[in-house]
Amino acid sequence: MKIEISIDQVKDASQPSRESGSTGIESISGVATLTEAVEGDLSFLGSAKHKGDLESTLASVIFVPQDTHISPKENQLFLYTENPSMSLAKVCEIVASEMWIQRPAGVHPSAHVSEDAEVDPTAYIGPNCVLDNRVQVGPNVQLSAGVCIGEGVEIGECSTIATNVTIVRDSVIGKRVQIHPGVVIGSDGFGYEPTPTGIYKIPQVGNVEIGDDVEIGANTTIDRGRLNATRIGFGTKIDNQVQIGHNVQIGNCCILCAQVGIAGSTIIEDFVVMGGRSGASGHIKIEKGAQLAGCAVAFSNLEAGGKYGGSPAMNLMTFQRITAITQRLPEMFKRIRKLESALKDS
Amino acid sequence: MKIEISIDQVKDASQPSRESGSTGIESISGVATLTEAVEGDLSFLGSAKHKGDLESTLASVIFVPQDTHISPKENQLFLYTENPSMSLAKVCEIVASEMWIQRPAGVHPSAHVSEDAEVDPTAYIGPNCVLDNRVQVGPNVQLSAGVCIGEGVEIGECSTIATNVTIVRDSVIGKRVQIHPGVVIGSDGFGYEPTPTGIYKIPQVGNVEIGDDVEIGANTTIDRGRLNATRIGFGTKIDNQVQIGHNVQIGNCCILCAQVGIAGSTIIEDFVVMGGRSGASGHIKIEKGAQLAGCAVAFSNLEAGGKYGGSPAMNLMTFQRITAITQRLPEMFKRIRKLESALKDS
Amino acid sequence: MKIEISIDQVKDASQPSRESGSTGIESISGVATLTEAVEGDLSFLGSAKHKGDLESTLASVIFVPQDTHISPKENQLFLYTENPSMSLAKVCEIVASEMWIQRPAGVHPSAHVSEDAEVDPTAYIGPNCVLDNRVQVGPNVQLSAGVCIGEGVEIGECSTIATNVTIVRDSVIGKRVQIHPGVVIGSDGFGYEPTPTGIYKIPQVGNVEIGDDVEIGANTTIDRGRLNATRIGFGTKIDNQVQIGHNVQIGNCCILCAQVGIAGSTIIEDFVVMGGRSGASGHIKIEKGAQLAGCAVAFSNLEAGGKYGGSPAMNLMTFQRITAITQRLPEMFKRIRKLESALKDS
Repeated sequence: MKIEISIDQVKDASQPSRESGSTGIESISGVATLTEAVEGDLSFLGSAKHKGDLESTLASVIFVPQDTHISPKENQLFLYTENPSMSLAKVCEIVASEMWIQRPAGVHPSAHVSEDAEVDPTAYIGPNCVLDNRVQVGPNVQLSAGVCIGEGVEIGECSTIATNVTIVRDSVIGKRVQIHPGVVIGSDGFGYEPTPTGIYKIPQVGNVEIGDDVEIGANTTIDRGRLNATRIGFGTKIDNQVQIGHNVQIGNCCILCAQVGIAGSTIIEDFVVMGGRSGASGHIKIEKGAQLAGCAVAFSNLEAGGKYGGSPAMNLMTFQRITAITQRLPEMFKRIRKLESALKDS
Repeated sequence: MKIEISIDQVKDASQPSRESGSTGIESISGVATLTEAVEGDLSFLGSAKHKGDLESTLASVIFVPQDTHISPKENQLFLYTENPSMSLAKVCEIVASEMWIQRPAGVHPSAHVSEDAEVDPTAYIGPNCVLDNRVQVGPNVQLSAGVCIGEGVEIGECSTIATNVTIVRDSVIGKRVQIHPGVVIGSDGFGYEPTPTGIYKIPQVGNVEIGDDVEIGANTTIDRGRLNATRIGFGTKIDNQVQIGHNVQIGNCCILCAQVGIAGSTIIEDFVVMGGRSGASGHIKIEKGAQLAGCAVAFSNLEAGGKYGGSPAMNLMTFQRITAITQRLPEMFKRIRKLESALKDS
Repeated sequence: MKIEISIDQVKDASQPSRESGSTGIESISGVATLTEAVEGDLSFLGSAKHKGDLESTLASVIFVPQDTHISPKENQLFLYTENPSMSLAKVCEIVASEMWIQRPAGVHPSAHVSEDAEVDPTAYIGPNCVLDNRVQVGPNVQLSAGVCIGEGVEIGECSTIATNVTIVRDSVIGKRVQIHPGVVIGSDGFGYEPTPTGIYKIPQVGNVEIGDDVEIGANTTIDRGRLNATRIGFGTKIDNQVQIGHNVQIGNCCILCAQVGIAGSTIIEDFVVMGGRSGASGHIKIEKGAQLAGCAVAFSNLEAGGKYGGSPAMNLMTFQRITAITQRLPEMFKRIRKLESALKDS
């Protein structure tokens, strides 16, 4: 992506405490990591372990930490900030705002919008979208191509929904929600009752409620509740290929990394962080601020603020100790055998 | 979802053995869990551990177990049944039947149906559907928007296929099959042969056969066989984000929870239950009625009726014992060290 | 799938070193495994453990290994080759070429192609496809129905993209790439920074680059880089439901089986093989030719050519030994107890 952002804009966005060196260019023409940067690029030193890359980088402008001792090369400008990664992110906001331009308001002629759907005149409804009866689309909502919205769904203002997303009937989507491609919200929960005449499907007549400022990654699935709502609290961020079962209640400002799975009726309280492919079995509670390491799976309640690893999930430090010690099991067996024969001889 | 179902209809659907209390209302206006219910709602006591909720609930009508000793409050009606959860499900069937109204027969004008496809006149083909050559769609089939059906696919009567599903050529779908959004059936199996000149792709010329009364959850993927069919037996229920490799043979009335993965050519016999994110490696057999706990992964054959846990999967009780004992490994090491020094001293 | 391929064509494709027996038929009418084959079918003996099936099969023509001692039955033709599975694959190429006929060049009238997109006149753009500004589609590319291509995406010659795939803006797709249904390429990476005022989303302004001859399975997701590209090297094969995080660099000719997950910024070098549901945490390196068994998860760097199992991944043989020994933990505890009481008595 070729860009053009003036050095002044860069400084405005990042507010560096000081600078050193100078560069002949007036604008940056790209953003890149230190190793991939070419002349004209803006980059950043994110962690001390990449200091070597700082010396060899071709980047013209670089955000560096306050305590950086290396000096810029010729034609290189260092900008000193508290958090170089964040400073770069602030500049990238300008890039992103040019990449993801709001589509002009209106309904694409190939979209199929029910007559009694209510679409705010500032919303954009893309090609081949299908909006069923009683759908409500708020101001400045953007629906990309192929989005299917079921009966009675409400979408709050400024939400953006990417291509080929399905939102099944009665779901309620908050404001400024970002939903990535292929997501399915509101499909039936997985509820059955074995009976003498076969497996009976329990009707799933609840819905899904997504809070404000939630982000949902590509191909994630969130099932509707059996009776009430499956809920995702405001500010929660969900990565790709996450599965959330029916009746699950997720609090505010949680982080769920890719491939997480949460079985039915489980409660995830506010500020919980779930690492990649971690999970929770059904009908349990993960209390406020608990953190699960990647691949950790909770099979029972987890305490507030705790850090957990392993499957079944246990205290993270215990898990790490046990993981280390497990490697010594063959040795342990040998030592037991030695003890046994020593005792026999004694 | 606001509903209106008369108390008489509720009783008709659930056939309570007896009742106590009375409520002024003539119809219920919602269904809800005990804790979320408001006045006018129908609820149920599913398990004894929620008895406290029964005392504080605002629900007007409640299914309770036969042996319930608590009495209804004023304006509250208890209906006593063998299985309150099931009784509620029966009432929810009425709700569901109003939610998921059959679309009127016909082909939406935006659908692209090949001239030599055969669509039963009672079927509904939604917006933007694409039906290729020789597709056969049976009576009362419902295809939602954006469904893509490949050449020669057959879909049995009364099956419903949700939005943005793909069924690749030659697949055969039974009767009353329910397929949720984003499912992919019949994509190529993953078969390669390393050769001196690169990775050779083995053509995948089989298909997929789905039995009657199967349900398939959102974003699940089922690959076509290499030569013959990948098969799912009748009555089997599959949750979201399940992956089924090529040539897999799944029996009848199995239950596969979310994120299950089954590698190629494995045989899953009838009545097998696979918990969330459990799995099976390729070319093995899981015998009739075996059950895998959540996250258990079979790397070799499992016996009929057995219960399994862990990865690699082992007898569930053994797994639980080992899991418990593993936590004591640090202690075990200490005890060995003590023994060693005691022996040295002795 | 009914087919008709002459015995001569079968021999041409497979070049058997010799043959024995004879069959009255002039063409095969199907391909099948030994157990599922009917008269007229071509089959193969893939491994010695299926020798029993060779004796009972109804197949008319069978590829067998050079050292096969069993003789064909009446009306049965054995073709002897070095690699019977590969020989069959060569014949299946003929079948496949008839199954997956190239669509005639052109843009379907229901597709929405931006005026400044460049579509090669030999390419096929299917129903309901959406191609945004500056998209470039190379010669002989085939886009199935419902494919959504974002701004500035380039697709190299002879690539085929299946139904309902999304490729988000700026992605670069190589030549002869095969992308299966429901895949999402170029969705935002999962990057946030916790701040006092909430979770700050780090803009993801990189892209995705897919090399030549890559295959990507159904519903797989590949995130765009934060600044630079997430890259997949040429010849790499990716199965269904794989998740690849932002900034990941995957080398050439790797094999990633279903449900693999790779967290952000990790480097997978050439020829790495990752078994089903294996994974890698973020910011690590898996060196050239390393192999991860199914469900193995790397939490730190893995060495070139090594074989790994377990989670956290360790040397595969160590893992197998530890797995076996773990089963004996209850016994181990008993032996320690015995030692302790023996020592007390001594």
